[in-house]
Amino acid sequence: MEVRERIIEEATNQFFKFGIRNVTMDDIAVSLGISKRTVYETFKDKSELIQICLKKLTEDGERKTIIVVSQSSNVIEAIFVFMQEGIKAINSINPVFFKDLKKLHPVMWKATEKEVIGKRSDLSGRLISKGIEEGLFRSDLNIEIISKLFHEQMNLLADDVVFPRDKYSHAEVFRNMIINFIRGISTPKGIEMIDSMGSKVNI
Amino acid sequence: MEVRERIIEEATNQFFKFGIRNVTMDDIAVSLGISKRTVYETFKDKSELIQICLKKLTEDGERKTIIVVSQSSNVIEAIFVFMQEGIKAINSINPVFFKDLKKLHPVMWKATEKEVIGKRSDLSGRLISKGIEEGLFRSDLNIEIISKLFHEQMNLLADDVVFPRDKYSHAEVFRNMIINFIRGISTPKGIEMIDSMGSKVNI
Repeated sequence: MEVRERIIEEATNQFFKFGIRNVTMDDIAVSLGISKRTVYETFKDKSELIQICLKKLTEDGERKTIIVVSQSSNVIEAIFVFMQEGIKAINSINPVFFKDLKKLHPVMWKATEKEVIGKRSDLSGRLISKGIEEGLFRSDLNIEIISKLFHEQMNLLADDVVFPRDKYSHAEVFRNMIINFIRGISTPKGIEMIDSMGSKVNI
Repeated sequence: MEVRERIIEEATNQFFKFGIRNVTMDDIAVSLGISKRTVYETFKDKSELIQICLKKLTEDGERKTIIVVSQSSNVIEAIFVFMQEGIKAINSINPVFFKDLKKLHPVMWKATEKEVIGKRSDLSGRLISKGIEEGLFRSDLNIEIISKLFHEQMNLLADDVVFPRDKYSHAEVFRNMIINFIRGISTPKGIEMIDSMGSKVNI
């Protein structure tokens, strides 16, 4: 791996683990056993490094989405993979990462959020249409309203007033949200599939 | 009917139709063919009248809830009655009523909102437990998380940014929310019942 890629990977890992404020360019250099100068020759400053990390995360997410959708035998199987990935992310990313990002880099945060929401919205529309074609989702769905309801539910996860982290397991809330939501839009055939897969979700 | 009851009924109707700011004590007197003095002998001022109207609305709602639950053969039938009532309310209450209430009488609004949310929360907990006993709702539900998700969805209806009234039929959003939500928490037996009743909902 090129030094540039190694820095991005190490920085992302450390940001996820400790948040943004707690990680310095020096920490990253030390962990990789390279000089601080090399880090600064590759990235102008920490802001640029964060920006590139975020860009890579959204690009990787997009690539992964395409692979999951194309490799799943149906839309419910794909959603379960996304759910399991989501639970993994909730369990492994320190919430301080998002808190720092919002507070210290609000412009970057807003831009990334906007991009992610746009992609998520496209994806959910496509998945719902695919599920209807596959006979797993109800054909009488109002796709626009349903998509909107779904995204608003997802936003609740980030709302610390509604689901404070010290009181609720976010992985558990997320699983309840997703399973309940797709059962709601599924045909009896789809629900049978969900119910047989639901017990296999690891929290 | 006593003059006091007639005033409350007429005031509530007019508030629902035209909002609060647009209705005067005089309008109410004229509609009832009584003198303005009679109105003011019964209620100190418009604020007191509004307060009493709100009190009566929540009491009537509570009474109706008890009747619906006790007269329904099961929890899904009861929820369909509540849904139809909700759709009727959405279609008949001018949104200006809530807007005026929030703006002109914020303390009254907050108190009423708190009471309604508390009652709604009790009710949904009881209905979910009843549904589980009846074999219509899944027995593995996390009742606390599910109730919270439900109430947060309901709050979206009041959020004019998420579902602006000029773009979305609130009755249609409400129907989608409820049907999707209860399908999500239902057993196959419950879903069969919902799907055979769903087509009978009047928007």
